[in-house]
Amino acid sequence: MRILGIDPGLQVCGYACIESKSGKTNLLEGGVIRTTASKTIEKRLNQIAEDIDSILDKFKPDVVGVEQLYSHYAHPRTAILMGHARGVILQRCAGAGIEVKSYSATRIKKCVTGNGHASKEQMQRTIQTILKLRELPKPADVADAVAAAICCAEMTGKSQWGVSR
Amino acid sequence: MRILGIDPGLQVCGYACIESKSGKTNLLEGGVIRTTASKTIEKRLNQIAEDIDSILDKFKPDVVGVEQLYSHYAHPRTAILMGHARGVILQRCAGAGIEVKSYSATRIKKCVTGNGHASKEQMQRTIQTILKLRELPKPADVADAVAAAICCAEMTGKSQWGVSR
Repeated sequence: MRILGIDPGLQVCGYACIESKSGKTNLLEGGVIRTTASKTIEKRLNQIAEDIDSILDKFKPDVVGVEQLYSHYAHPRTAILMGHARGVILQRCAGAGIEVKSYSATRIKKCVTGNGHASKEQMQRTIQTILKLRELPKPADVADAVAAAICCAEMTGKSQWGVSR
Repeated sequence: MRILGIDPGLQVCGYACIESKSGKTNLLEGGVIRTTASKTIEKRLNQIAEDIDSILDKFKPDVVGVEQLYSHYAHPRTAILMGHARGVILQRCAGAGIEVKSYSATRIKKCVTGNGHASKEQMQRTIQTILKLRELPKPADVADAVAAAICCAEMTGKSQWGVSR
């Protein structure tokens, strides 16, 4: 069972693919898609689409967990631009016929650490422990993507590490 | 010279293709893409992507004019969802290698009627006059899409009807 987690963004978009096999869960790959701020928004969105296509093609996940956007951002313009990027990500998954699950940041934090208001450090350390990583997952966008994948595994009952939160 | 105007939306998305040829400007087609509210957002976005692809393939526009979203909506959640749809539209255009131009609603209204705060009726009547339509363009989403196309033509200096505003 492969689960891709995505922390959507226009400038930096985190992704992480985890696999549960024979009772063990591994991080297959985590990384970020970065777009150049000097390019037009449509070119940046197209780059995100192409990179998401490559990731879906490489890992062929069974389900994709995507973090939701807040609707109470201090900068509504930023939220709308992030919405542009998230829309492209969801459409590429749907176009590839892959199931999508959306979770709020609070839901993801609660699922991973038991605390819906966990700090970034708490999140990183818990993820490190769960996946037995040698280092803390970095940058924060990757950690958020791993967390979305873990939450997706827990919420859909596909978790293999037996952690119940 | 063919110009596609788009009024982006998740539930209803207006589109209109105009053509300037031998000094005359005609409306080739105007319509709406409607998505079913009961479907998942990713399926709705995928439907928009497929319909935009068909429209781009049918009309092969030289440029696409897309209305911008307000960042001061009363309902930020709605603005974010509209951002999802607009992101998909921009990406499909960029993916097809078609130039995209974005204009604010105020810019479009000023360009078409000379008044940045023109009413819906004023917009519809002016469009009817410019394009010599027998009926008012309806619904409002189609009228907004035609207006985006006209604005795009004017702003990029590709207008053939010699209206200078």
